[in-house]
Amino acid sequence: MEMQSIEKVEEEVERVVEQAKELQDSASSLINRTSSDEQSLRQRALALDSNIRRLRSSLHSLPSKLADKLEDDLHRATCLIYDGDASYFLPNKAHGGFLKMFIGPINVRASHKDVQFKVKEEYNSYRDRTALLFLLFPSTLLILRSWIWDECLPAFPVQLYQAWLLFLYTGLALRENILRLNGSDIRPWWIYHHYCAMIMALVSLTWEIKGQPNCAQKQRGVQLFLLWAMMQGVAMLLQNRYQRQRLYTRIALGKAKRMDVVWGETAGVDGQLWLLCPVLFILQGFEAYVGLLLLKTAFVGVVSEWQVIVCGILLVLMAVGNFTNTVQTLMVKSRFKAKMKRSKSKQEL
Amino acid sequence: MEMQSIEKVEEEVERVVEQAKELQDSASSLINRTSSDEQSLRQRALALDSNIRRLRSSLHSLPSKLADKLEDDLHRATCLIYDGDASYFLPNKAHGGFLKMFIGPINVRASHKDVQFKVKEEYNSYRDRTALLFLLFPSTLLILRSWIWDECLPAFPVQLYQAWLLFLYTGLALRENILRLNGSDIRPWWIYHHYCAMIMALVSLTWEIKGQPNCAQKQRGVQLFLLWAMMQGVAMLLQNRYQRQRLYTRIALGKAKRMDVVWGETAGVDGQLWLLCPVLFILQGFEAYVGLLLLKTAFVGVVSEWQVIVCGILLVLMAVGNFTNTVQTLMVKSRFKAKMKRSKSKQEL
Repeated sequence: MEMQSIEKVEEEVERVVEQAKELQDSASSLINRTSSDEQSLRQRALALDSNIRRLRSSLHSLPSKLADKLEDDLHRATCLIYDGDASYFLPNKAHGGFLKMFIGPINVRASHKDVQFKVKEEYNSYRDRTALLFLLFPSTLLILRSWIWDECLPAFPVQLYQAWLLFLYTGLALRENILRLNGSDIRPWWIYHHYCAMIMALVSLTWEIKGQPNCAQKQRGVQLFLLWAMMQGVAMLLQNRYQRQRLYTRIALGKAKRMDVVWGETAGVDGQLWLLCPVLFILQGFEAYVGLLLLKTAFVGVVSEWQVIVCGILLVLMAVGNFTNTVQTLMVKSRFKAKMKRSKSKQEL
Repeated sequence: MEMQSIEKVEEEVERVVEQAKELQDSASSLINRTSSDEQSLRQRALALDSNIRRLRSSLHSLPSKLADKLEDDLHRATCLIYDGDASYFLPNKAHGGFLKMFIGPINVRASHKDVQFKVKEEYNSYRDRTALLFLLFPSTLLILRSWIWDECLPAFPVQLYQAWLLFLYTGLALRENILRLNGSDIRPWWIYHHYCAMIMALVSLTWEIKGQPNCAQKQRGVQLFLLWAMMQGVAMLLQNRYQRQRLYTRIALGKAKRMDVVWGETAGVDGQLWLLCPVLFILQGFEAYVGLLLLKTAFVGVVSEWQVIVCGILLVLMAVGNFTNTVQTLMVKSRFKAKMKRSKSKQEL
């Protein structure tokens, strides 16, 4: 190589080293600056939040009309803090033992609203994919059972299915915990529901799948469970459609206030809700029925393993919880709609 | 209430609403500013990284002495980018399918080095806690087996133990994936190892724990497995001590260059390494032995379930992988020490 180009390379290397140092300096100064800015915003958000709380508790001594108006104002301020970008600077909701158990204390909050929407969108498409499998997996097992397996399920495919359920519910529970930290107002029950389902999948894995003779009788529990899972798949698909429409409305409305968003939500998908609800209620009834059947087989003594009892209790528990929560959600929605109508007619007057 | 204090409350509410708007504005402007600053740093880091690669590939045509020197310079620049704060702005290592399966595409990188250390420290203390349980759980089972259970383990406590193992290995694998994204140079094998262990725990859950008659013979596999798990607990405790010391050295050295850190690492804990290695090798031998025994019982026909075969193969696989990787780590360390000595004696000359 010529002397000249050697020198050129040397120079370039020198420059690169210099640039690396500069980059390192800019990076650490950006990180430090950002973190002190964040710190000060965090303090402001905290102070403001406690101010609002204090003011709210002092409203009761005012004349009721004024108190209502000020209450609305304070509510608007709260919405601004909790739904807007400022929410990122409020102290973390408790990280949740579940998430901590699996992934430790790492931060899983996204600072950007659009990233949060992306997370939610991914969660929905994950649910879509799993809902399809939820439909296909048990129905394939049941079809093969009557076509090929002579009414007697072999252990391995059922256990594979149970392992998949365990994995699926763990993933859902983790994602939902993450969504909650990112400001989603998912009802805690749906997460508890997935914890129950995880335990059930785990328990059912240890549950021996008995073969001939008397297979149909011994496997009655498994069979019912698969039937229920198929229906669950249909309900999940419907629910997903509904949820997705809600999300799109929310995105379309952008950074509108919480109230507008909720109104938009109910407005767009009313028709679907009246399809979804009966399906959900039928499913919940069937879930409780399967649970009670399991308990019956356990106590009558055909299959007396502890797994049957635990699964039975869990199914009944989940059915009751699901029912209660669906009803509560409907009640909140209709109460809200009534309020909206009232305020609309007030405006028209 | 007097008119005056009513007015005061009204004013305060107004001020609070105003403050909430301001806070929202500052928050979104901070988030936007930070994200554009990050974007530009990201581009600088990428450009610099590709520059370094290009220069490195052009060194081979230079005289060897100069090439060595420039290579060292470029290495220093790389270390600055990859180990320092700038590393946060380099594109993510592939998120890893495993992490994505469980928690979706959420960002789990910490921007601050001290948060990263905290994550690592938490991982270590998690390992400490689990190592103790790893020792206690199987040894309790084995002691109860000979004291109370008359040489015949009941199914439930063993399955509880297996479920715990499944949960434990899932948590470890998730945390290690997160650590890797945060710049830890953990060897990929140790993560694969935990995937294997997860599969084994899952498979063993479906493995029927047979009772009397001939219990001792039928449960030979389980018994060996528990024995191996106890030894694993001891090894984990030793490993943790070693790893922790490495981490403290790293923290003490602060933002020193990668080279210094590695040197410091080896220097402080040499003595322990020579205690750790024989224990690890014995354990790996025992792991392979248990695996082969399981395969033997499967093929001789005492217990001919597929679970036995799968667990046997997995144990042998893990033993071989562990051995290979321990040897490789030792070789890297000794090669590095030799290099350090050489450069030290050069300096003294």
